[in-house]
Amino acid sequence: MTQQIHPGNVRSAVSPLDTNAFGADPAVGLSARAADLLDRRRTALGPGYRAFYQRPIEVVRGEGAYLWSGDGERYLDMYNNVASVGHANPRVIAAVAEQWSLINTHTRYLHEGILKYAEDLLATFPDGLDHAVFTCTGSEANDLAIRLAREATRRRGVIVTRYAYHGGTIAVDACSPSTGEQFSVDSSWVRTIDAPATPSDGADPGPAMAQQIREKIGELESSGIGFAAFLLDSSFSSDGLVTAPAGFLAPVIDAVHQAGGLFIADEVQPGFGRLGDSLWGHTRHGVTADLVTLGKPMGNGFPVAATLFRPELVADTGVAYFNTFGGNPVAMAAAQAVLDEIRDRRLVDNSHQQGLALQAGLKGLATGCPWIAEVRGAGLFAAVEFADPVTGESAPEAASAIVNGLKDRGVLVSTVGPRGDALKIRPPLVVGEPEVSLFLETLETALAEELPI
Amino acid sequence: MTQQIHPGNVRSAVSPLDTNAFGADPAVGLSARAADLLDRRRTALGPGYRAFYQRPIEVVRGEGAYLWSGDGERYLDMYNNVASVGHANPRVIAAVAEQWSLINTHTRYLHEGILKYAEDLLATFPDGLDHAVFTCTGSEANDLAIRLAREATRRRGVIVTRYAYHGGTIAVDACSPSTGEQFSVDSSWVRTIDAPATPSDGADPGPAMAQQIREKIGELESSGIGFAAFLLDSSFSSDGLVTAPAGFLAPVIDAVHQAGGLFIADEVQPGFGRLGDSLWGHTRHGVTADLVTLGKPMGNGFPVAATLFRPELVADTGVAYFNTFGGNPVAMAAAQAVLDEIRDRRLVDNSHQQGLALQAGLKGLATGCPWIAEVRGAGLFAAVEFADPVTGESAPEAASAIVNGLKDRGVLVSTVGPRGDALKIRPPLVVGEPEVSLFLETLETALAEELPI
Repeated sequence: MTQQIHPGNVRSAVSPLDTNAFGADPAVGLSARAADLLDRRRTALGPGYRAFYQRPIEVVRGEGAYLWSGDGERYLDMYNNVASVGHANPRVIAAVAEQWSLINTHTRYLHEGILKYAEDLLATFPDGLDHAVFTCTGSEANDLAIRLAREATRRRGVIVTRYAYHGGTIAVDACSPSTGEQFSVDSSWVRTIDAPATPSDGADPGPAMAQQIREKIGELESSGIGFAAFLLDSSFSSDGLVTAPAGFLAPVIDAVHQAGGLFIADEVQPGFGRLGDSLWGHTRHGVTADLVTLGKPMGNGFPVAATLFRPELVADTGVAYFNTFGGNPVAMAAAQAVLDEIRDRRLVDNSHQQGLALQAGLKGLATGCPWIAEVRGAGLFAAVEFADPVTGESAPEAASAIVNGLKDRGVLVSTVGPRGDALKIRPPLVVGEPEVSLFLETLETALAEELPI
Repeated sequence: MTQQIHPGNVRSAVSPLDTNAFGADPAVGLSARAADLLDRRRTALGPGYRAFYQRPIEVVRGEGAYLWSGDGERYLDMYNNVASVGHANPRVIAAVAEQWSLINTHTRYLHEGILKYAEDLLATFPDGLDHAVFTCTGSEANDLAIRLAREATRRRGVIVTRYAYHGGTIAVDACSPSTGEQFSVDSSWVRTIDAPATPSDGADPGPAMAQQIREKIGELESSGIGFAAFLLDSSFSSDGLVTAPAGFLAPVIDAVHQAGGLFIADEVQPGFGRLGDSLWGHTRHGVTADLVTLGKPMGNGFPVAATLFRPELVADTGVAYFNTFGGNPVAMAAAQAVLDEIRDRRLVDNSHQQGLALQAGLKGLATGCPWIAEVRGAGLFAAVEFADPVTGESAPEAASAIVNGLKDRGVLVSTVGPRGDALKIRPPLVVGEPEVSLFLETLETALAEELPI
């Protein structure tokens, strides 16, 4: 027996997901404990797992917006959107334990939990998005959305943005050009358009995007693949975070609908109040989605996700979908507790208020730091882009220095964007004034001490 | 704006998953509560969700191998393999709550939980399967396995059995012919071979299967797609459950390896002791897997799954994989508690012992019931196939009558196989002698009272 293994080069492109990856450089001064854990990771998990930071950290405890490492260091978490209602949120943990002590089966039996949650969730969306199907991950939600869009339109092609990331299944990876070309993934049915250019001058990027998408729709139609859907994260997070001017998407979505295509709003990143204005990112643009996908913060770390859609899309089809864990009573209890926390603690308002302070503070720091080329964002989602003050060239090394410098000063962020030259700031929605102030003060110090004058 | 919606016929084929589906027949005498819940399902969840049984039940509580409905009825659960270490298992629930009270982040930080579990899990496999990557569902695990097999072989084609079910992503659905052809799914890279014929006469089906797979490999190679992998549930569960004679797969897997292809053992159904002989189904056949996928019972209802593989498959590739919830500390705590329960309560032995009693009891009932054409299975996984005693024709209506008749008598099973003519019996691994006896007694009554003499 001979296995014919060809190594290949699966991720030759620089992925924005990997620009803050530990590079296994032995010179970085790891603790014995971290070195041992990294060694065990390589042995048991293989090379596919990337750790954050030049010196990765072991995280052993969390509460609210704070994390603690195994060696007792406290970190202000300005990065993790999954623990949206706070690390170790007691209401979510109790809801999971209580429901699981009763029952945790699947959706082939009746259970009220899934109905209560679906009804509450759908009520937060504009009329028309009236069905919810539950999966376990945003990847599964996008995979299902693509399938539903294809069945409804009887066409196969999907358009995404040039550095989009929508998840990790084979079909969804085809729609995630930020991860690079891969032999194992057929992306012949995917076309890309540019995200609005950054830094922006405040001009309306909508008409140019609409023109681009009409061209790509034409390509798909003339190729015989056909145009099924435009799959978009309306915060353009992996494209570098483009949140302004709100409303610019309207002519783009009009072009999609005029061609008989469907708009899938991927709310995995912007959803559940991240952008401060409302629960959902795409509604900031005044556009109507035909399908919506949800994930990451939905269960505060419990694997739960969803695809919502207009009932007409499946009318009279025999479509059936079953997901063993999707929508199970415990998943729904976790999701219900998160939605209740967001409502009861007014976390969308908090995202708006603290977001205003965060964005204003970042813009203030930008005026005093020649390396900061632009500050973008809305609510509690911000990007700080770096460029060389002399040459004007993108400066991912500056972003990396600040990410690692902040970490050494007890604050966690990461990088974002196609060039990895921007800070990605995306804290749990529970941060208050003290956390935003601590973050801005620490960033000011790091900017002064980590970058050349 | 005009949406061009073509209804299509997504699931025109009869799926074995749907033969025990509630048919929305208003004449079946639903309780007001069940009718209300079904109505809310249709409104909020849409037509994709199928409920079990002619009169679906609301399940509100569970303990060990028993479930209770909303109207207070107790059911012996002889169907659910997910709650493998028992419904509402206190050790699993406590492990999840305790870990979550500390921390639940993701794998870009270091955490010992994933390493301890990966090491414990990998130690249960033959040497060679030395890397584990964690996902949330068996669908994701199979999707990733296909991707890894394609990257490793630089070929794209996959062979599965004719009524295989491997999950629900677009790529994995292409490998799940039991769900029927769908417009949205490209299965041009998939070929099928027959599962061993049932009823079997005890003859060795291996050589004929090996011959078939050689032919399909040749087709894939000559088409230019190439042969990457054979993806197999070694218990052939959705093909109708074929577990004997153990060992018959050896020449089939030899043919796979001789062609330079990889064998992906889908252990989502047979894994974690289901078949009684050992933790893993494919090892019963004395064959070596290149990749293994795990799911359903792995977290006793917590969404956790895994892809294991030989390190050589990813050596020198730049392969990176990140799954937001996959391998998070809480998922690992759930999985660790399940593995510890299986070991400490000797549940593989129990599966073997109770399985012997179950299979012997079923064979005894078969001798007294002319409708039973065959009893198949191993450990706590059994199929009872029905055929008309006069014509010899497959009798799915008899299987359905028994499934619903058992349910009315307080015992839950479902149907399996391409014709839906067999009972699917697959209880939590914690069933003891009282449960097996109760099941066999109830089945004897149902056979006598539900079928024509």
